[in-house]
Amino acid sequence: MTKRIAVIPGDGIGPEVVSQGVKVLKKLEEISDLDFEFKEFPLGAEHYLKTGELVTDEVKEELANFDAIYLGAVGDPRVEPGVLEHGILLDLRFSFDQYINLRPIRLYDSRFTPLKDKSPADIDMMIVRENTEGLYSGVGGFLKKDTEDEVATQEMVNTYKGVERVTRYAYEYAKNQSQEQKLTLCDKSNVLTYAHDLWQRVFVELGKEYKSVDQDHMLVDAMTMKLVRNPEDFDVVVTCNMFGDIITDLGAEIQGGMGLAVSGNINPEGVSMFEPVHGSAPDIAGENKANPLAAVLAASMMVEILGYSKEAAKVEKAVKLSLQNDQTTPDMGGSLTTDQVGDHLCSLLE
Amino acid sequence: MTKRIAVIPGDGIGPEVVSQGVKVLKKLEEISDLDFEFKEFPLGAEHYLKTGELVTDEVKEELANFDAIYLGAVGDPRVEPGVLEHGILLDLRFSFDQYINLRPIRLYDSRFTPLKDKSPADIDMMIVRENTEGLYSGVGGFLKKDTEDEVATQEMVNTYKGVERVTRYAYEYAKNQSQEQKLTLCDKSNVLTYAHDLWQRVFVELGKEYKSVDQDHMLVDAMTMKLVRNPEDFDVVVTCNMFGDIITDLGAEIQGGMGLAVSGNINPEGVSMFEPVHGSAPDIAGENKANPLAAVLAASMMVEILGYSKEAAKVEKAVKLSLQNDQTTPDMGGSLTTDQVGDHLCSLLE
Ligand SMILES: CC(C)[C@H](C(=O)O)[C@@H](O)C(=O)O
Ligand SMILES: CC(C)[C@H](C(=O)O)[C@@H](O)C(=O)O
Repeated sequence: MTKRIAVIPGDGIGPEVVSQGVKVLKKLEEISDLDFEFKEFPLGAEHYLKTGELVTDEVKEELANFDAIYLGAVGDPRVEPGVLEHGILLDLRFSFDQYINLRPIRLYDSRFTPLKDKSPADIDMMIVRENTEGLYSGVGGFLKKDTEDEVATQEMVNTYKGVERVTRYAYEYAKNQSQEQKLTLCDKSNVLTYAHDLWQRVFVELGKEYKSVDQDHMLVDAMTMKLVRNPEDFDVVVTCNMFGDIITDLGAEIQGGMGLAVSGNINPEGVSMFEPVHGSAPDIAGENKANPLAAVLAASMMVEILGYSKEAAKVEKAVKLSLQNDQTTPDMGGSLTTDQVGDHLCSLLE
Repeated sequence: MTKRIAVIPGDGIGPEVVSQGVKVLKKLEEISDLDFEFKEFPLGAEHYLKTGELVTDEVKEELANFDAIYLGAVGDPRVEPGVLEHGILLDLRFSFDQYINLRPIRLYDSRFTPLKDKSPADIDMMIVRENTEGLYSGVGGFLKKDTEDEVATQEMVNTYKGVERVTRYAYEYAKNQSQEQKLTLCDKSNVLTYAHDLWQRVFVELGKEYKSVDQDHMLVDAMTMKLVRNPEDFDVVVTCNMFGDIITDLGAEIQGGMGLAVSGNINPEGVSMFEPVHGSAPDIAGENKANPLAAVLAASMMVEILGYSKEAAKVEKAVKLSLQNDQTTPDMGGSLTTDQVGDHLCSLLE
């Protein structure tokens, strides 16, 4: 069956890296039963500067008919920081109720971690981040702004529904793994005695349905320590939106940095969106030297979530090989161009 | 002039490590003009279980007459998690308006960092954490608790006054350093558009008074990456209570872990409190094997904040030497007891 993919190349290096991902997906079509239909959406800084539009309701209605969204990057020095992130990235996450943010932390080669004595077997976990509420709810305000009596508030809002669905997803994820089955809740329940008390209760309550899954708890401050000292202790981690933002970036770093970090914004019942975590890197845009591996890994995760694990694994394996053999762009130690990395991956897939 | 120190040994290994700190302070009295008067306060789990009291108003009134508080650790398996932390640690921070949490991140020997290729010159910074508001304000609540419609909220509350005073402290700290003078604001202003907008405005506004200080900004997610990849880029960092909690623990880990991490809860106009960051470690309490170095470094920071930098530097130097020469407890690679480490430090001070 044909899968319809909405491609949003976006800004800076977005178009270059996304086109490698599309190249790899087209190669997958050749060597498997997969069939994709791509449509590009020219959203991003250029479009915004020309039209003043970010993502209109019409575009959202159209996107709703796709099986997935494949996004490059947004961000442009000509646009005030935050505008494109809010108006495109966060808006799509919220509009399509992509309540899961899936972030694999996976070291492909020991060379790439800044940590001493850690191997790929030590750094291999999945972080499941809540993606539609918490401190990202946008609720808050000012009292007496711009005076010495100013009060500024930002609300961490959690709902039972929101916490339940992401926690259940994480339990299911842990349970469906072939090897270790462990789920760690990361929160700050000793201080956030309302919002994270709810997380605690839901975690324990659902835990009764998932007896085969080892259940662990870790305060966020201790979690960051353990991520760099004993990353091998983690398997699947579930956490709130804000802490997820923080620990997934730390996780990205210990597995080799932004050049390899992937983010899936998932609505299991709706339209999901896949993106490399790195930004638009305007300073190197258009020079055919941006590292496309995170974008390709994002494509691989998209294929997996669309239901084709075997094909996804092939792509991931190709990426791993290209890293081990230095068939990469200069930032990863190789000497290939963006295009050449894409071609190399396709040749590995054959 | 005599400085009056209130000593709260607390729970678990607290008494053992704090007595090494007191031993070192007494040695300082011998070899310098310093003069201390110590009084012990038996606060902690034992006292709570016997009397039901945490810190009474009477005790607070008494503590208010001291020059500083020297705290070991609180936490006991017989008491529900959170009770002692809230009822003692956080209560003292808030009651004495200790609005600065000062956390030095300093690597004494390359062996102790989990990071590749980082030396003491690379890991040397001061994190200045706001300590009395933000997500720690305790504001929040439940709607329809224990139903499927439950909403749980937790409020990040910041005031101009609160942000201004900690930011000013951090600028002063950066300015008064002999070498590099750089201050980095760590926030999530692209998402926390109210609470952290205030931080941004205050940082820029005060920055005009501190032209000699290099001013930098980093989002908290990027900050965690940079702390493990390029810790050498940081000098002084200022941040909100919650993010400070997270990044100081990460910082503690990259400089060698909890065995060496120190926290000063400071009210520049009032009574400050100094503590090792590690917990009460009940599993090894009373065995004379707990590592006292963080407690001794906390004593050194106390001496410094009381105005005796030269004497504080001597203590820090002794700790550094004992680490380099493996005159430490087993957790740091040595084979001394808690007491012996204290004695060794005293002999180094002579
Ligand atoms: C760009 C930003 C709004 C976003 C976030 O904070 O979620 C990013 O950091 C991420 O993790 O995808
Ligand atoms: C014990 C806990 C309440 C405390 C905090 O969150 O501030 C601790 O983690 C710290 O950093 O001193």
